[in-house]
Amino acid sequence: MTDDALIRMPNRGTTLCISLSGRPSDIGTRFHNYIYRELGLDYLYKAFTTTDLPAAIAGVRGLGIRGCAVSMPFKEAVIDLVDVMEPSAAAIESVNTIVNELGVLHAYNTDYSAVASLLRSHAVDPALPTAVHGSGGMAKAVVAALRDSGFADVTVVARNAATGTALADAYGFRYAAEAPTGTRVLVNVTPIGMAGAPAAGDLSFPAELIASAAAVFDVVAMPPDTPLIRAARTAGAPVVTGAEVIALQAAEQFALYTGITPDAELVRRASEFSRS
Amino acid sequence: MTDDALIRMPNRGTTLCISLSGRPSDIGTRFHNYIYRELGLDYLYKAFTTTDLPAAIAGVRGLGIRGCAVSMPFKEAVIDLVDVMEPSAAAIESVNTIVNELGVLHAYNTDYSAVASLLRSHAVDPALPTAVHGSGGMAKAVVAALRDSGFADVTVVARNAATGTALADAYGFRYAAEAPTGTRVLVNVTPIGMAGAPAAGDLSFPAELIASAAAVFDVVAMPPDTPLIRAARTAGAPVVTGAEVIALQAAEQFALYTGITPDAELVRRASEFSRS
Repeated sequence: MTDDALIRMPNRGTTLCISLSGRPSDIGTRFHNYIYRELGLDYLYKAFTTTDLPAAIAGVRGLGIRGCAVSMPFKEAVIDLVDVMEPSAAAIESVNTIVNELGVLHAYNTDYSAVASLLRSHAVDPALPTAVHGSGGMAKAVVAALRDSGFADVTVVARNAATGTALADAYGFRYAAEAPTGTRVLVNVTPIGMAGAPAAGDLSFPAELIASAAAVFDVVAMPPDTPLIRAARTAGAPVVTGAEVIALQAAEQFALYTGITPDAELVRRASEFSRS
Repeated sequence: MTDDALIRMPNRGTTLCISLSGRPSDIGTRFHNYIYRELGLDYLYKAFTTTDLPAAIAGVRGLGIRGCAVSMPFKEAVIDLVDVMEPSAAAIESVNTIVNELGVLHAYNTDYSAVASLLRSHAVDPALPTAVHGSGGMAKAVVAALRDSGFADVTVVARNAATGTALADAYGFRYAAEAPTGTRVLVNVTPIGMAGAPAAGDLSFPAELIASAAAVFDVVAMPPDTPLIRAARTAGAPVVTGAEVIALQAAEQFALYTGITPDAELVRRASEFSRS
């Protein structure tokens, strides 16, 4: 046991935040507890799973749990159990963060808001032809963030034509089996390039599109330098990495729970600790 | 912050135990976390209050919380929310401990079982005339433990004749405004002698009864040497202290949650730590 693994013993006043997911990891627990300790905040974080989501959310209310991160498979089912759908959650009808304000449960989606923030902070031009590869839950957050950031020329690319078309239609965009020639902004929301995935070594977009890209955005965070990100860097295209998405969405959750926005260096250290 | 105040950071597998009370203290949190750390158990303890008991108990189920200590004012209200009333809780229709066995909530009363254990381990003779001073919740635990330990000649003494008579009647004993002459076993379950109470310096029984007592039992734990206990020791009477009750009931709770019975020396150190 290193010193890093020690925290202050909780007391009656310690505020609890939790996560609910089908398969809990230790990443959130380590990320939040690390920053609590560094900032001297009287908070405690613990990951849970549940076989009874309504009872678990009743517990958030009944025990005065301040915050609750929500992961698969609960992101949609929890909508009926909260009191207020904040715009970020309403935009994609999916919740990843609940904040308990004196018994009133407010729902947010910090994946959506983190993607929107990164499009802004990296000054990705909404006038450029854009392709989103993927049609799952995170793709929905990306497509909604693009629409709400003013992107008008967006193609959803997916192997599964049914889910791809449904996603594109839902946000007023078009579907295609492949990214159109002339696409300048490339966003990968598939597992392609993810460590351990079958396509870990592959590129999510054709090399010729990467070569002429104005921005390349990969939500895959492990590793942060996917083949797509490395190819984009080689081609001289500005990149946004999945590591940035994860760190920003976690920092936004942290701020929603505590009212304190941790600085970038602290978030970097906490992220590193959370994966160690 | 001393080293004593540090615990291991929880992870996804860490088992949570909690307490629910109207006015949480830090004693249970410090007691349990201290022993978890000393024994290297992957458990975490945290005190809570609630304004919605059914929701809080739903949370015990929904979050897979292993154990829940129950204090005033929830000890009776929680009966309708558990699944199995174990004999110790059924004996006094009052719950101070809930154990979650894979979603089935078992209710116990370790105050009752601790008193019964102490009567046995101190070999208090059930044939002797016995007086119990007090008629509150803990007096109920004591009177029931006396009855179930074979005591037949028991007088409930209370200033409040209505509650005293009701308690005596419920367990087949008699009520009296004062302890009868010839009483040999004296049990105090009033706040008389408790630090900070109006009667902190008083004796709960007349000096002449103490002088001829065969056993004196005081449930007041703060201080452990109440005026009654000191007078009994001076008179040469065997004593059972409130500190013993608290330590034993806490150790029994600990064993119910973890399956491990901490040894007496560890309980002593944890109790000392919990009050420091």
